[in-house]
Amino acid sequence: MKLTVRIHDVDISEPGVLIHDDDCAQIGVQEGDRVKVSGSTQAVLLVGRSDTLIDLGHIGVPGKVAQKYNFKDGDEVSVVFASKPDSVRSIRKKMDGERLDKEEIRALVEDILENRLTKIEISAWLTALYINGMDIDEIADFTVAMAETGDVIKFDRGPVFDFHSLGGVPGNKVTPIVVSIVAAAGIMIPKTSSRAISSACGTSDFVETFCDVEIDADRLKEITQDIGGVFSWGGSMNLAPVDDLVIKVEHPLGINPRAQMLASIMSKKLAIGATHLVVDIPTGAGTKVQTIEEAKRYAKDLMDLGERIGMHVECAITYADQPVGYAVGPNLEARECISILEGNKHPSAVVEKACDCAGIILEVAGIPNGAAKAREILDSGEAYRKFMEIVVAQGGRPDLRSEDLQPGKYSYDVVSPKSGYVHAIRNKDVVSVAKAAGAPADKGAGILFSKKKGQRVEAGDVLFTIYADNEAKLKRARDAAVRYPPMEIEGMLIKRVSPLTAR
Amino acid sequence: MKLTVRIHDVDISEPGVLIHDDDCAQIGVQEGDRVKVSGSTQAVLLVGRSDTLIDLGHIGVPGKVAQKYNFKDGDEVSVVFASKPDSVRSIRKKMDGERLDKEEIRALVEDILENRLTKIEISAWLTALYINGMDIDEIADFTVAMAETGDVIKFDRGPVFDFHSLGGVPGNKVTPIVVSIVAAAGIMIPKTSSRAISSACGTSDFVETFCDVEIDADRLKEITQDIGGVFSWGGSMNLAPVDDLVIKVEHPLGINPRAQMLASIMSKKLAIGATHLVVDIPTGAGTKVQTIEEAKRYAKDLMDLGERIGMHVECAITYADQPVGYAVGPNLEARECISILEGNKHPSAVVEKACDCAGIILEVAGIPNGAAKAREILDSGEAYRKFMEIVVAQGGRPDLRSEDLQPGKYSYDVVSPKSGYVHAIRNKDVVSVAKAAGAPADKGAGILFSKKKGQRVEAGDVLFTIYADNEAKLKRARDAAVRYPPMEIEGMLIKRVSPLTAR
Repeated sequence: MKLTVRIHDVDISEPGVLIHDDDCAQIGVQEGDRVKVSGSTQAVLLVGRSDTLIDLGHIGVPGKVAQKYNFKDGDEVSVVFASKPDSVRSIRKKMDGERLDKEEIRALVEDILENRLTKIEISAWLTALYINGMDIDEIADFTVAMAETGDVIKFDRGPVFDFHSLGGVPGNKVTPIVVSIVAAAGIMIPKTSSRAISSACGTSDFVETFCDVEIDADRLKEITQDIGGVFSWGGSMNLAPVDDLVIKVEHPLGINPRAQMLASIMSKKLAIGATHLVVDIPTGAGTKVQTIEEAKRYAKDLMDLGERIGMHVECAITYADQPVGYAVGPNLEARECISILEGNKHPSAVVEKACDCAGIILEVAGIPNGAAKAREILDSGEAYRKFMEIVVAQGGRPDLRSEDLQPGKYSYDVVSPKSGYVHAIRNKDVVSVAKAAGAPADKGAGILFSKKKGQRVEAGDVLFTIYADNEAKLKRARDAAVRYPPMEIEGMLIKRVSPLTAR
Repeated sequence: MKLTVRIHDVDISEPGVLIHDDDCAQIGVQEGDRVKVSGSTQAVLLVGRSDTLIDLGHIGVPGKVAQKYNFKDGDEVSVVFASKPDSVRSIRKKMDGERLDKEEIRALVEDILENRLTKIEISAWLTALYINGMDIDEIADFTVAMAETGDVIKFDRGPVFDFHSLGGVPGNKVTPIVVSIVAAAGIMIPKTSSRAISSACGTSDFVETFCDVEIDADRLKEITQDIGGVFSWGGSMNLAPVDDLVIKVEHPLGINPRAQMLASIMSKKLAIGATHLVVDIPTGAGTKVQTIEEAKRYAKDLMDLGERIGMHVECAITYADQPVGYAVGPNLEARECISILEGNKHPSAVVEKACDCAGIILEVAGIPNGAAKAREILDSGEAYRKFMEIVVAQGGRPDLRSEDLQPGKYSYDVVSPKSGYVHAIRNKDVVSVAKAAGAPADKGAGILFSKKKGQRVEAGDVLFTIYADNEAKLKRARDAAVRYPPMEIEGMLIKRVSPLTAR
């Protein structure tokens, strides 16, 4: 059917054309179908919708779509029904509980990447994947397809190490310390991190307070080969780009199918050129992984997958029943992290966790007594010197000091209403309060703990301080701390169980 | 956060607001989240997307949304994160294979109807429903919720009969005949039909060639109580309206989960006030239901469901290995249907099927020897007189004759290349060719068969004639008939099986 192009300024998140209801009936298409539009290219577009918005005999084309396919306002084009991409059939297969082969998985990944699938179709795919899953060989094919549809970095020499944290525990500022120790030991570790998705502060959110994190692939390779390590933001490269499109659908559904999660992590490691990987699996209440058994299952999956894609994988199951260290929020975390590297003595679990994780990497690289060696590198100042080399290479100030990073001007001390012990610090509530204070967008926002789990507290002692960059958010965070108190104080007697209460 | 309203002319199929990326980070929302916008109403809207399209400090509101919530251009509003509707949790439960209770199902149906769920969420719901299903009690709750969230017709007296065909077989023009016979027997049958979704011609598509099908609920009740029956289009009333929204997501996925299909049929019957229902289940290759076993399962489901919602249900499994009768397409089907009612003798299976189905209804209503009685009503002209009463009540001409309905001016005879027998008429290919000819939008388009399955054919005999309203579509249909030949001619020897071929 012949229609006249009408360019309009509608930017719908799915690039579709508009056709009048009656024309749709003539062509034999409905909303959600595809049409093939003649013109400079044989492009297949989606029918976005059809109604009174568009005149009979016209086809409404959003500006961006018109540009992509080179349509001009007033063009006469022929419009016919086009069949769905083959990968829609693969989605049906997964709905029906069947396995997909390598080619089907590759085609599906390409179709998502090229915007050939609608959100409805991607949602069905993720739901089917969540319910019916993939076996480990399918996940390996999925991982390779996700990596190969983006940029793949190839280092001139190996081995290339990487470190990844499954996340979910607030205050986890170990990454720059691990990278500095490992690089100081002469091992290449091109670490990419993410920004917060649902957390209060991702690694890139606090690293960018003291140096650039947006580093392109060439520069990442250069710094890594020269200095040994980087702490960059993964989003500044085109690594496994299909993942970002999938997250847009995963997020509203609140699901992260196991196959997608594993492929998402491992495809980015494959793309960065890693040959060896250590994965930190924070385990505890209020994190992604709640129990040791679950953590072991993840570890097995990651190692099995590594074996299939030719990557040596080891895992560290770490304690995550409370935040790591004392600070949560960009500037606060940066300060705590740098202060440790500077050699200031902290009673912080950050030191222990960083040295244990770095230690595993050192041992995989053939250096015996890894954790002790890592501690030695940290204590000797070698790690700090390596850290500063990386910071300067990423555009940071050569005279950077931890005290340069200051929390927000507005603060509020939360004091204990009674004497006792810190019985719990709830990760989810910590995140809620820090986010209410403005983290991670407001760099000064966050929480600084004065006490950690198990410590003795007297009535009136400061438990933690909330920081914010403005008064309104401080108030919002205070309110949040009342609604979701992050800390629980109990006497030694936590609960009296009498015959009456036990009944 | 305070933002300034900017009304824009974007009509995305999902009513969302646009907020700048940086403002989204401040509010703590991402694409796919909801926000609560202050103003005249405490409305919860979807965040459609955020990018350079909208300035910092502004909130882009589509005209329709602004109208609904009474926002004015330049309004200063406060925007905060809003949690998802509770029914998103029900979707997750179904993904996890759990059952939903009555209240959860009701809330979900209301949220879909009120546009509170996104397409991504509805897609996940349908996929989970397709994979994990519902038990019959859940389906009953689902059916009642779907009916009660729309208009419900209450007749002044009972019983009220209804007739439904699962569809999938082309040329199935029995409905007006069944309704006319049943109404002539003094039984109320307010029949609503649909237009073609994927078929070449729905009942409403051919009935509207000789009378109005868009009848509102009051008029439907009036005609039914006065005359006994109607043949109206279901879409002209607000019956189980959530179904239409769900279909928009089902169609692109190409799925029709059993629970959704059953609830969809039965909720409309409940809404129309039916107390008794006979369901025609066309069974055969190329239809929705392929085998007798499958048909029996559908019948059992429908009867079980009927029992739970207080409706007497019986089913007719009917032969559907080839089209019903000789004509496919709006005018052609209308002509064949009316001609039968006029008393012209046809060697058509239409007569047999219509009388068998009407017969079941008569027997359920207490009239013995239903099929014979139905035939008597048809042969005596009583059915024809009732048919004309209904046609006139629906605005049709009182002097309507079957020959008023003529096929398209452009036609092409497809002849047999050899002598033999009609071995098969493939329903799917019949539909493809009729649609290529322009059916159902072009009223004259369609196919008229000269031969049916099993009949003797000589080389050069006309097998069927393709009709179209214009030359281009006739050519398209001819091409389709070459690509997908609807008819298969074989000699008495269909296939020689020798030791060589059998190997």
